[in-house]
Amino acid sequence: MQKFAFDEYLACQKNLVDADLKKFFSQKNALFDIMYYSVDGGKRIRPILAIAGYEACGGSDTGAIMPIACGLELIHTYSLIHDDLPAMDNDDFRRGKASAHRKFNEATAILSGDALFAYAFELFSSGNDYAPEKLEVIRVVSEAVGPQGVVHGQMLDICDMEQQPKVLRSIHLNKTAKFLAVAIKVGAIMAGASRTVIEKLHGAGICLGMLFQYTDDILDVVGDKNALGKTPGKDEASGKLTAPAVYGLEGARFRAQRYADRAKVQFRELGNEFEFFCQMTDFVLNRSF
Amino acid sequence: MQKFAFDEYLACQKNLVDADLKKFFSQKNALFDIMYYSVDGGKRIRPILAIAGYEACGGSDTGAIMPIACGLELIHTYSLIHDDLPAMDNDDFRRGKASAHRKFNEATAILSGDALFAYAFELFSSGNDYAPEKLEVIRVVSEAVGPQGVVHGQMLDICDMEQQPKVLRSIHLNKTAKFLAVAIKVGAIMAGASRTVIEKLHGAGICLGMLFQYTDDILDVVGDKNALGKTPGKDEASGKLTAPAVYGLEGARFRAQRYADRAKVQFRELGNEFEFFCQMTDFVLNRSF
Repeated sequence: MQKFAFDEYLACQKNLVDADLKKFFSQKNALFDIMYYSVDGGKRIRPILAIAGYEACGGSDTGAIMPIACGLELIHTYSLIHDDLPAMDNDDFRRGKASAHRKFNEATAILSGDALFAYAFELFSSGNDYAPEKLEVIRVVSEAVGPQGVVHGQMLDICDMEQQPKVLRSIHLNKTAKFLAVAIKVGAIMAGASRTVIEKLHGAGICLGMLFQYTDDILDVVGDKNALGKTPGKDEASGKLTAPAVYGLEGARFRAQRYADRAKVQFRELGNEFEFFCQMTDFVLNRSF
Repeated sequence: MQKFAFDEYLACQKNLVDADLKKFFSQKNALFDIMYYSVDGGKRIRPILAIAGYEACGGSDTGAIMPIACGLELIHTYSLIHDDLPAMDNDDFRRGKASAHRKFNEATAILSGDALFAYAFELFSSGNDYAPEKLEVIRVVSEAVGPQGVVHGQMLDICDMEQQPKVLRSIHLNKTAKFLAVAIKVGAIMAGASRTVIEKLHGAGICLGMLFQYTDDILDVVGDKNALGKTPGKDEASGKLTAPAVYGLEGARFRAQRYADRAKVQFRELGNEFEFFCQMTDFVLNRSF
């Protein structure tokens, strides 16, 4: 996949995800508008990973993967809303606009996050068929985002911890890498890939996810507020355990590169159909937003 | 089912649920202990309704229904934790002890609620089989507790609304009745009951759920803090839209009785196996906690 083809693929999939997300919110009650405010404006990395994983494993039914892909974005959005709350990171700015508790109020932000979380599982289980793959998707996603995944990582993140590489690794793994890896994995599951492929993709996805959080930590130091759509410098100011805090900026960059190399080796081993993920790895390594 | 048999059944099922809940939390990481603090001490109404629904519809595999039943209790607990937060009802007392944000802190309370929600779906989808019933359970539960169910009801509950019977009905239906009804329904689904039975049970469950919220509103006026395990008088003090506020105490009692009568007629129509639910209806009507 050449560079321009990758950029085009990314833009095209983002548009499809955006259109379907809009569809899932065009109806019902006032709460859906409130939820959609926070959903609108994301990069759609997780849904795109799910779709790309699905297609790389031979899946071709867009209607089957889209509700799953969109559900992942809803869970990501809910975690951002709760993360931005005054009791948590207290961030007023997200996705280039006021965060949910600033736009509405704290109670509304908490509830809209809760509603997005529940609605994701509605999307995962929607449709008239009872495909066993959907149940496996729900199992692996709920594991990745729950008390042994994202929420565990967030708990570690808000606790005062020693600046230890081991704790940093646990935060990155749980808060970010498991969820990113599972996005690719659910694509493979929905496409009916073999156990071997599913597990190899998961391993490579963990490296990509670790890289993602490394570049996130680095951008908190060197990034630009408008490009990021959120406030940089917050981790440093609040004494958070980040890669630059533990390894210094250059040490963090060196390790980010190493995770990128590892991810690409593992994606390459899976064959040419997975070339997208190598490009994605470079994209994450070099991102400025 | 005679009175003593009902009381015994309730106590017995509560013990089984408590034991299984303990098992599901005996492991893993420190977050599980924090989550379990809030889980401990509930009446277990929803899990018992699920088990009773399962057994009334001929289900006999305790191992199949228990993770589902316990998952419902986790969702109920998460909604209580978030409901008690300072930005919401700001309640310091729950299940006879300090509420989560008072025992720990606000961030920990938010996250332990989030973790319980995710963990519920882990339980729903757990096990080595991919039974289609589990996917239907996830579908109906996520619908009942999401933006067209519990969270919608909570949004209405925190908004300034006119003291109108129509709004009151919508709050009660969404905040409480749909979730209680779905508890019975998932029992029937897991037992492989017919569509007709599932839908009739759901209708009766909605009446039982409306009754449950009516008695909740009434107990907020006349209840005792120690018996309730939470703070009474809060709805009235905060000007909430409750049944006594709209209909007066006697009007609310009259309507509670009417919901109880309707529920019992509908449960009776389903046959003798559903006698438990008539007793449960009386139990809810006459409860003091």
